[in-house]
Amino acid sequence: MGILVTGFRASGIFSGIKQSGKKDLGLLFSEEPATTVGVFTTNKIKAAPVLITREKVKQRCCQAIIVNSGNANACTGTTGLQHANDLCQLVAEQLGISENLVMVSSTGIIGVTLPMDRIENSIPKLAKSLSPLGLSDFAEAIMTTDTFPKIVVKKDKIDGKEVTLCGIAKGSGMVMPHMATLLSFIVTDLAIHADLLEELFREAVNSSFNRISIDGETSTNDMVIMMANSRAGNSNLQKQSSDLKTFKNSLNATFVDLKKLILKDAEGSTKMISIRVKEARSNEEAKKIAYQVANSSLVKTAFFGEDVNWGRIIAAVGKADADIDPEHIDVFFDDLMIVENSTSTGMESRAKDIIKKSEFQVTITLHNGSGMAEVDTTDLTTEYVKINSSYHT
Amino acid sequence: MGILVTGFRASGIFSGIKQSGKKDLGLLFSEEPATTVGVFTTNKIKAAPVLITREKVKQRCCQAIIVNSGNANACTGTTGLQHANDLCQLVAEQLGISENLVMVSSTGIIGVTLPMDRIENSIPKLAKSLSPLGLSDFAEAIMTTDTFPKIVVKKDKIDGKEVTLCGIAKGSGMVMPHMATLLSFIVTDLAIHADLLEELFREAVNSSFNRISIDGETSTNDMVIMMANSRAGNSNLQKQSSDLKTFKNSLNATFVDLKKLILKDAEGSTKMISIRVKEARSNEEAKKIAYQVANSSLVKTAFFGEDVNWGRIIAAVGKADADIDPEHIDVFFDDLMIVENSTSTGMESRAKDIIKKSEFQVTITLHNGSGMAEVDTTDLTTEYVKINSSYHT
Repeated sequence: MGILVTGFRASGIFSGIKQSGKKDLGLLFSEEPATTVGVFTTNKIKAAPVLITREKVKQRCCQAIIVNSGNANACTGTTGLQHANDLCQLVAEQLGISENLVMVSSTGIIGVTLPMDRIENSIPKLAKSLSPLGLSDFAEAIMTTDTFPKIVVKKDKIDGKEVTLCGIAKGSGMVMPHMATLLSFIVTDLAIHADLLEELFREAVNSSFNRISIDGETSTNDMVIMMANSRAGNSNLQKQSSDLKTFKNSLNATFVDLKKLILKDAEGSTKMISIRVKEARSNEEAKKIAYQVANSSLVKTAFFGEDVNWGRIIAAVGKADADIDPEHIDVFFDDLMIVENSTSTGMESRAKDIIKKSEFQVTITLHNGSGMAEVDTTDLTTEYVKINSSYHT
Repeated sequence: MGILVTGFRASGIFSGIKQSGKKDLGLLFSEEPATTVGVFTTNKIKAAPVLITREKVKQRCCQAIIVNSGNANACTGTTGLQHANDLCQLVAEQLGISENLVMVSSTGIIGVTLPMDRIENSIPKLAKSLSPLGLSDFAEAIMTTDTFPKIVVKKDKIDGKEVTLCGIAKGSGMVMPHMATLLSFIVTDLAIHADLLEELFREAVNSSFNRISIDGETSTNDMVIMMANSRAGNSNLQKQSSDLKTFKNSLNATFVDLKKLILKDAEGSTKMISIRVKEARSNEEAKKIAYQVANSSLVKTAFFGEDVNWGRIIAAVGKADADIDPEHIDVFFDDLMIVENSTSTGMESRAKDIIKKSEFQVTITLHNGSGMAEVDTTDLTTEYVKINSSYHT
């Protein structure tokens, strides 16, 4: 059963970038110009493809994107910019469309220039391989240390028409603890105004990917691009449309599902943990505390060791740049209170059953206001260190 | 060859806190009240002994400190405070001195109350074991996951008298990436005014320990205490004394040597790396960038894998909250320039020889001002994760 989104074609091939011989070049093409929105890394060092695609997305209308894995084309100077532009031009020629409508994205090692001869030679084949059933090849071609391709599909009736949403992502567990290259491409045949799409898209990103990748802790290459090509035949989705909620729910669910696939594939991780901070002085402070806990190597290794070492959680809370009352912190594992007023409730052995689960919540209540935040993290494992010390990604 | 500091006695015994049966209770005693200064954790969650000892050090005159390992007496509420006070009182009774002159310090697991019956029963033995040659027993008694005791001794001629400085520390590699319990006790028989001692002490801490443990990234229990008991017989060291520089150098060297011992013993680490940031907009920004690099799991795993993956360094620079020019970053491994204007100099294979060393420097030049900072870090190893996931510390 192939994945079909009306009017989109895709392909993925091996072009000679990856030493492994695995697919490393992908192309996504809409048969007509599509409403396009995107968000990009907040890292101050931005890869050449990010600089170029960010500008093109401002038109809110694009038609294709070429993506390579195995090489980030970051820190490659003016040569890198030239290469990224050349890729767009080569694809535009093959597809017979304007270069302005072609975006570019890269992921992989930083600081090495692209092997342009090999890529250039592969582009005709890449274009010829375009197929309505090619989305899974494309999903494979954008992988780096990912162990499986990440694709989510949702179908809805909007304005009486069948509308398909297809989200594709690559993570590599580097999302946590610090920066990953997170690439994600969402395509739909829905007809929708660009302003509304932008609004729904940003909201969905904020409540999914942005919960796993803090501002400023992003890689040089992160981008999330969404294209809507109107081929479902619905009349333009409006803010007041009765079907708005249906689409919004599917869009949010697509992002949340992709996020879960990314965390599931986080390099070497064995668990997914939601860190919830409640009753902080402000949402901002709640977020700082949640990230301090979620990014603490000591907390994450304790999760891996299934050790109910809540002292490490409390110590992480205490080092956050936030106003807390050190004597009045409560900590729950799922619904079990293990710390009350900053001291043990004696429930450590019961908490053992929770920490053994592959997914659970840690709630930290601060009794200091009404600020809230929630972020998702994984455990830190020996496998993570092995992967990140042995692979030159 | 025992270590002697005139007028100081020390001991270390097993009292029943550690399951391993290793020494877990130490006592340090000056035969007369000593000029005392200290610095304490900046974590908002402070262990009971930190709260109590911080107050006592304000008098700048103390005579003894009792230290236990295996239990941090942190997040133990009013019971914990009572226990810490009781320890001081029990020691004061045994030594026949005022309780006001007795400090207390703890390290180990958070959130568990001290086994006071066992400790109380051991205090007479602890006091009886006090010996001028007991400093090495004391150094052993304060260890947690440390693999060796850390002691540094310096001797100087000051005002014609022989003065001895002895620094003792416990680290456990948890200093990096986030928080360690760092305890350190420095004793000297020098005569020196409290104001001057405070000044020299803070300067020495800032250029040593504070370079490995960022503000707010400290544990609940950190403390560094220095006692000077005047028994060397020199006339009070003054700011204008010709011997000031001699003592200052020895004090700084003591802290730097202790820092090196701590990094050497960092849990599972195989390397020590100095991260230097130059030409940042300000010292403050240089510091932020240096810590972002020094604490990056990706950078630290690359060091472990001896992989000249400078892209991870650049990406870490880019996520720091600092003003940088993304096109003009240079990176050196020791004196070898591997990145110029944010692109490769092609020197990766020569840099391989440097990254294989057990100690080297990474210099990041930003061409954006005159701000500088330097921090020391270690690599992140599979052994680190094993230690921190298997041991309940």
